[in-house]
Amino acid sequence: MAKVKVVVNGVGAIGKRVAHAVKLQDDMKLVGISDVAPTSVLRTNLEPEGFLYKTDLYCSVPELKGNLESSGFYVKGTLPDLLASGQVDVVVDCSPAGIDEKNKLLYRQHNVKAIFQGGAKDSLAQASFNSLVNFDESVGRQFVRVVSCNTTSLSRTFYAAEKAFGIKKAFVSLVRRAVDPWNPSKGPINAIKPAMSVPSHHGPDLKTIMHGLDVVTMAVVVPTTLAHVHIVSIETKNHASKKALENAFEKTSRVNVLDAKDGFSSTAEIMEKYRDLGRPRSDMPEVAVWRETVAAEKNHIYWMHAVHSESIVVPENIDAIRAVTGIESNNLKSIKKTDKALGIK
Amino acid sequence: MAKVKVVVNGVGAIGKRVAHAVKLQDDMKLVGISDVAPTSVLRTNLEPEGFLYKTDLYCSVPELKGNLESSGFYVKGTLPDLLASGQVDVVVDCSPAGIDEKNKLLYRQHNVKAIFQGGAKDSLAQASFNSLVNFDESVGRQFVRVVSCNTTSLSRTFYAAEKAFGIKKAFVSLVRRAVDPWNPSKGPINAIKPAMSVPSHHGPDLKTIMHGLDVVTMAVVVPTTLAHVHIVSIETKNHASKKALENAFEKTSRVNVLDAKDGFSSTAEIMEKYRDLGRPRSDMPEVAVWRETVAAEKNHIYWMHAVHSESIVVPENIDAIRAVTGIESNNLKSIKKTDKALGIK
Repeated sequence: MAKVKVVVNGVGAIGKRVAHAVKLQDDMKLVGISDVAPTSVLRTNLEPEGFLYKTDLYCSVPELKGNLESSGFYVKGTLPDLLASGQVDVVVDCSPAGIDEKNKLLYRQHNVKAIFQGGAKDSLAQASFNSLVNFDESVGRQFVRVVSCNTTSLSRTFYAAEKAFGIKKAFVSLVRRAVDPWNPSKGPINAIKPAMSVPSHHGPDLKTIMHGLDVVTMAVVVPTTLAHVHIVSIETKNHASKKALENAFEKTSRVNVLDAKDGFSSTAEIMEKYRDLGRPRSDMPEVAVWRETVAAEKNHIYWMHAVHSESIVVPENIDAIRAVTGIESNNLKSIKKTDKALGIK
Repeated sequence: MAKVKVVVNGVGAIGKRVAHAVKLQDDMKLVGISDVAPTSVLRTNLEPEGFLYKTDLYCSVPELKGNLESSGFYVKGTLPDLLASGQVDVVVDCSPAGIDEKNKLLYRQHNVKAIFQGGAKDSLAQASFNSLVNFDESVGRQFVRVVSCNTTSLSRTFYAAEKAFGIKKAFVSLVRRAVDPWNPSKGPINAIKPAMSVPSHHGPDLKTIMHGLDVVTMAVVVPTTLAHVHIVSIETKNHASKKALENAFEKTSRVNVLDAKDGFSSTAEIMEKYRDLGRPRSDMPEVAVWRETVAAEKNHIYWMHAVHSESIVVPENIDAIRAVTGIESNNLKSIKKTDKALGIK
């Protein structure tokens, strides 16, 4: 079977990772990456030691091509021309929120499929996507949206909890890292900043994946960059136990259970583990649940997990490419294939 | 009526504040403060511009008196001698956890009443204390314990919620500041650190105040020093509304409702408000609820509040002195008197 031809449009925190992940799949071909600005990220990734060395670079907006070229980049062509040439099956759109809407017009014009990211409006896509929960809803679609890092982590863990005991009602407190580690934006450096709406946007987003779920989320931002932490409280339909919930997490793909007693007492040691494992960019696409925080009493379960916001959606993007193109319509097979290629446990 | 004679034993973050607050009451007399170590805090507070200038200093442990004296402090005597002299009615024990147990033997020997702090074991005291919820349980007792900053904030706000709608079941996520602002201890500076037990100790502590309450708490520590934030989810017995919950908070003493739209978007701006109000040490003994986070749907309510851990228990200690000595047995009268003396809204 011919490989699926993919372009990643927007080489930022997510785009650079998805492009690299596409390169590692044997059923996909990274036709190119596309961007508009001569950023340090673009430059580094295209260097001989970079993860995207020798990848063809296109300019998303024809008028800005000269801008990239005068900064020393070799630009093979423009994205509209590339799409018009019929050489692309799927665009993974990792452009900033707001741009994606304009881009969609371009993708529609050239009749290519597109996968948007969590920052995009729900209405932009025909389906929101999570590999475990609702892969099928995206099979064969033209426009799909991979939900955000927070929603992806909740989709995976709630999938485990739903299968184990059934979810009657859920409440989640999200303790969010302020910015990505590379981001020099001024976050709160000595304050806790609540999201001033109840629910925060995460709950409604999760419902685009788990339809009919009864969930309320509330979120605060705190001065750290490594990972988010979610504090979960769920009333279950059936009688629950700590052991059964641990087992449910342990057999769920892309969910790891880590022990504080083994030294994983915070997000810091957890992220260090993935540095020591030699993962690309020290990423942790898995959700990390702390075993000591898993608890159950009758029809109620609790846990905390950590979310590496930069990388958790990368494997879901790969699976979404398979879903929209139909090259694999079984979600578990796609997950297994992706995880093997990316070295995910 | 003769003034109640009070000694504060242990001049740290809480002790220095309680001693100052005692000085401001017209029905109490600060006989002295007592400590063992020549700390910078002790020195500053006894300076001419300090809040405890001219307060008599005693040494809690007779053998350590020379240690204080050789560091330049004038020590009037030892705490055991002072207690033996019959000049003290109540000791507010603000000594470090672990020491309080040994101190209790001393207080018993000299038949003085003592008020311990939240770090002390529940079993040390005959009653746990909150001014609003269970003042009566401490009236006339010898040994009472004022619960911690977190528990005090939950007692006040849950009191409002209980009165308004009845509490069926509660879940609280505590997002804790790592250390006091003055504390050079190394907290997490770029990590989120969960408490590895469910419930965290706060839930059981709250039940020593609100008996029979169905509550589970989970806590994380984050890299900030200003204040804690609690994220609360409560299933109510009766139908709830946002407006009624706001009203309940607004008419509850020592609970302030602040608006993000007025610029209070995080703990940072909230604490700045109390600096600008000229409060002693820029303290905020009130719980601050963010109006935008107050929400209700049928039998469920939600909110977030900020807790200034250094000062929130100070007014409760003053009320506890009145309770154990019986000079005021009506909690609302005591609260009103304390708040007026301390300038609390």
